[in-house]
Amino acid sequence: MKRRLGPSDRLYPMPCPLVVGGTAEEADLLAVAWIGIAAGSPPSVSMALRDSRHTLGLIRRTGEFTVNVPRASQAAVVDYCGITSGRDVDKAAAAGLTLVPGAVVATPLVAECPYNLECRVTHEVDIGHYVLVVGEIVESHADEDILDTSGTKVDAGLLDPLVYIAGSREYRSLGPVVAEAFSIGRTIGAREPEQAR
Amino acid sequence: MKRRLGPSDRLYPMPCPLVVGGTAEEADLLAVAWIGIAAGSPPSVSMALRDSRHTLGLIRRTGEFTVNVPRASQAAVVDYCGITSGRDVDKAAAAGLTLVPGAVVATPLVAECPYNLECRVTHEVDIGHYVLVVGEIVESHADEDILDTSGTKVDAGLLDPLVYIAGSREYRSLGPVVAEAFSIGRTIGAREPEQAR
Repeated sequence: MKRRLGPSDRLYPMPCPLVVGGTAEEADLLAVAWIGIAAGSPPSVSMALRDSRHTLGLIRRTGEFTVNVPRASQAAVVDYCGITSGRDVDKAAAAGLTLVPGAVVATPLVAECPYNLECRVTHEVDIGHYVLVVGEIVESHADEDILDTSGTKVDAGLLDPLVYIAGSREYRSLGPVVAEAFSIGRTIGAREPEQAR
Repeated sequence: MKRRLGPSDRLYPMPCPLVVGGTAEEADLLAVAWIGIAAGSPPSVSMALRDSRHTLGLIRRTGEFTVNVPRASQAAVVDYCGITSGRDVDKAAAAGLTLVPGAVVATPLVAECPYNLECRVTHEVDIGHYVLVVGEIVESHADEDILDTSGTKVDAGLLDPLVYIAGSREYRSLGPVVAEAFSIGRTIGAREPEQAR
């Protein structure tokens, strides 16, 4: 039996990276759960920011930002960056985070986050008091200790990314692998619909 | 030490709901990992679809779609809906999924998915061969057995949502709670930066 819960801004699960705007001279960062991949070619990301966010102003100045994926063990600093405004305090310094130069854009990366994307803004969509910022992903970086044996691909188990659950306001870690994608679906055929259950 | 991996369309983790387009008479569905919340007021969702997708054509006909969050145990049907085209086969029937009427929009919900959003398209953004579809979330539904004791909020542990990991092509389940959001960050103060480590 389903129950109607009304219009909702919840989806399960969500990532929770730290997004940085600005330059080495003046940067700010915040935690963004409302973010996802927006295209495959060119690879792009979209994220929803309140139009009053300090980091949004910094992103608009340079047209660039970085997305920095934290480990589950970094929940406290991510939460701090989500509940504090950078107008009054140097959040990175307060949280003990190190901003380091990227390779392509002028906006710095968060050194302590093991996976990082460098982005250039391509679109902005106004939605109520939010701005959906779309950016092309022009470079990605990973700590060597989260790469699989090929040395070119992130191992999600080693990354152990932070997971956010809206509504119940929980941070979680990733659970075990339950199936192989682009593979287990082949066990379902139009002639044996009972296999789908 | 960080390694440059080049432009990438990966973010960790991702949700993997089934998105339905069309009506009771003609509907199709697909698995969409490139999806996220796009605004809080009005609550909105954005998702990236290839411009050639059959479901996109159906969404455009009515200007509506639904987002249906599966349990981790439903990985096989989700994967099937991701790797099969609805041009040639009735995917819902083949996968043993039941399409049921929503409350607000004409596009049906997937009965077997325990959490569902009804959406109306508000924006489309063309990005290369992808279309970023933005929709206002006009209603949400949850199975009673995934609600917490208040009866009004989803319990993520009971929902046990499917998690997708791009790159390594894995489906995973959710791991344990590691911290309380809007709370653990308060343990970090500007005067004690060493606490952030």
